[in-house]
Amino acid sequence: MSQKSPVWKKDLILMLAQIREASRQIPNLSPVLKNKMLSEAAALLEKRTAKLIAENRKDLKNAVREKLSPAMIDRLTLTPKRIHEMAQGVRAVAGLKDPIGQVVLRWTRPNGLRISRVTVPLGVILIIYESRPNVTVECASLCLKSGNAVILRGGREAFFSNRALVWIFEEILNRHGVAKASVSFVQTTDRQAVDFLLKRDADINLVIPRGGEALIRKVARTSRIPVIKHYQGICHVYVDKKADLKKAVAIAYNAKMQRPGVCNAMETLLVHKDIAARFLPLLGESLKSGGCEVRADALTQRILPWAKRAAKSDYGREFLDKILAVKTVLDLSEAIRHIQTYGSAHTDAIVTEDSRAAEIFKKEVDSSSVMVNASTRFSDGFQYGFGAEIGISTDKIHARGPMGLEGLTSYKYVVEGSGQVRT
Amino acid sequence: MSQKSPVWKKDLILMLAQIREASRQIPNLSPVLKNKMLSEAAALLEKRTAKLIAENRKDLKNAVREKLSPAMIDRLTLTPKRIHEMAQGVRAVAGLKDPIGQVVLRWTRPNGLRISRVTVPLGVILIIYESRPNVTVECASLCLKSGNAVILRGGREAFFSNRALVWIFEEILNRHGVAKASVSFVQTTDRQAVDFLLKRDADINLVIPRGGEALIRKVARTSRIPVIKHYQGICHVYVDKKADLKKAVAIAYNAKMQRPGVCNAMETLLVHKDIAARFLPLLGESLKSGGCEVRADALTQRILPWAKRAAKSDYGREFLDKILAVKTVLDLSEAIRHIQTYGSAHTDAIVTEDSRAAEIFKKEVDSSSVMVNASTRFSDGFQYGFGAEIGISTDKIHARGPMGLEGLTSYKYVVEGSGQVRT
Repeated sequence: MSQKSPVWKKDLILMLAQIREASRQIPNLSPVLKNKMLSEAAALLEKRTAKLIAENRKDLKNAVREKLSPAMIDRLTLTPKRIHEMAQGVRAVAGLKDPIGQVVLRWTRPNGLRISRVTVPLGVILIIYESRPNVTVECASLCLKSGNAVILRGGREAFFSNRALVWIFEEILNRHGVAKASVSFVQTTDRQAVDFLLKRDADINLVIPRGGEALIRKVARTSRIPVIKHYQGICHVYVDKKADLKKAVAIAYNAKMQRPGVCNAMETLLVHKDIAARFLPLLGESLKSGGCEVRADALTQRILPWAKRAAKSDYGREFLDKILAVKTVLDLSEAIRHIQTYGSAHTDAIVTEDSRAAEIFKKEVDSSSVMVNASTRFSDGFQYGFGAEIGISTDKIHARGPMGLEGLTSYKYVVEGSGQVRT
Repeated sequence: MSQKSPVWKKDLILMLAQIREASRQIPNLSPVLKNKMLSEAAALLEKRTAKLIAENRKDLKNAVREKLSPAMIDRLTLTPKRIHEMAQGVRAVAGLKDPIGQVVLRWTRPNGLRISRVTVPLGVILIIYESRPNVTVECASLCLKSGNAVILRGGREAFFSNRALVWIFEEILNRHGVAKASVSFVQTTDRQAVDFLLKRDADINLVIPRGGEALIRKVARTSRIPVIKHYQGICHVYVDKKADLKKAVAIAYNAKMQRPGVCNAMETLLVHKDIAARFLPLLGESLKSGGCEVRADALTQRILPWAKRAAKSDYGREFLDKILAVKTVLDLSEAIRHIQTYGSAHTDAIVTEDSRAAEIFKKEVDSSSVMVNASTRFSDGFQYGFGAEIGISTDKIHARGPMGLEGLTSYKYVVEGSGQVRT
């Protein structure tokens, strides 16, 4: 405390004051104006392609010097095609229904008071994310659409790209006389600046960390502001004894292999013992030829002798890769118990034609998404039809599961009377 | 860290494990069983009146020895009448609509997936509260009704009373084979036990502190678990130039005087300059004869010369008493600006017959409850018709404003398909 304040501290305090001010203006912008600004931002992104690519090159030069992995460099790279896709994303957000000012409930009390619950923006949202610059554009447009001011804190490695993308939004906001602090960008790359922001619960209403588990855990540990998050996606598919074999193979294969590196991919397969001998060889063949490693318990190994023996730590592990833990279970109860013990409340599926088993599974598995006869890969804001996804929450406070624009709103009660007083 | 663990630590860790287990059982209890248990708990409360009063006497003896204030001792005291009222409260909770398993949204995607959003309990709720033992009964019944396990941590001064009230619930849970950890009571009065619990974000889903501002601030600062709270109720009434004088006097008087010590009582009155000379003398007379001190700005003092001069710190101050800050404002904008600057987003009201002014006020005042021509005293879960009030939130995450049973729920997405996979 007796140390000299870092130089960025004064800047951030000023920025927070400007954002607080902006967060009073933008909730009241008309949907027409918000959508106009979004369309213009999309056009400007495309118009400024050359400039954006020039700024992106500075990041890429640093990335090469700092020997980032080819995968990271790829995620960091902007191309005309990717810029066009970003712009299309912004246009899609403009096309969504306005989430603010919606009367979601309305009732009248016996004393004549008319009460309504009306959606409002959350206020100020802090997004902390890693290398992909498209997150900048996505979050800026979703927050603008929902009347929230946003503070963007991207990774150091994408600093120049992110800053240039924020300029686009600033230019559009300026053009329409809207406070440009509505889309704010943290100019310092000092990590302590994040810790500082995470303590400002009087200025910031919500934090959304987007990135790896380590980043999210650090944010959750440090923050005094509510955090929307999921640490991991330990998704299960349980193939019941009354499963349709064809559906079960298709769903399990899709859940694991369609995109193994994402949070809604299956990590553990649970198979009822009565169907194991028929089901496992069918799926096993596909997995083997797809290059998927299988780590199995003893019962499963009897049917798939080529499978590796699973370590205890393979259950509840997020492989994010072509590796699958498999366990043969005695019954539905054991499957549910396994999911309750090892799952992460992200997405879990049952494959069954038995509606009673499905009912029990839907009731007792308390995950943010529970699937019946469908691939876990569907738990996604776009697949659910929200038109956007700002994140996925496995917590139970505020929003749960894939979170669209609605998750960026709160509400207020409007009470209208004719002079009522309380007795 | 190298110190010896306190004795209560092992107990709490065991308790948390039992609660986690209970929180898997109670979400699936039928509404019929939950309501039966609540009715039986109500009956048992009344049947055990003598025992409860005997336990309460232990607390009262300590209270006298520790020289608690008469007001605190009064709040702590159980009488047959108060026990009957508690029992009636439990019966009222039994009569509410079951909040769990409700399908709040349902839609079908183009690929045939049927998606529904179904309410579920939050899981484990920690309630931290001060002297009134009725909070024990109220929270235990609301949590049981909503399928949540609850950890009750009451004040040291009500230890014996609270413990005896929890015994009632334990006995009923036991009778029906429901895990008695569903209603858990923190046996230690060591304050560090609370700090320990507030770090257990993997075991506890929500914290609700009920008590004074100091308690709530301490909980918010320490907790790693989401906290539902409001620090203060700095409620305003703005009397517009187009106000109906009779309504304005009735509302302002009621908002201040009907019960000055509560969070939804008015603390500051704002009056449009064009109506001040007609309105203020009328209200002033009532306030004066009601024994209310008025602290006013210079403009107001010209009309009410007997009023004290307000210090700057009187605006935004929660008097919780028969003291009122008054300010004459130039227009609606200044009133809104004042509320934005000094308010606490609890409840703010406008009195006006001008629908345009009402519209602007409703839109620009971002408080959890915004009133038009009604007393601020109505912002209350019972007055809104929720049938219960677990707390009031001025934050924007999860629930906002008066919070009934719905605030104790989250949801999951249930996705039903016929073999769909993602391409």
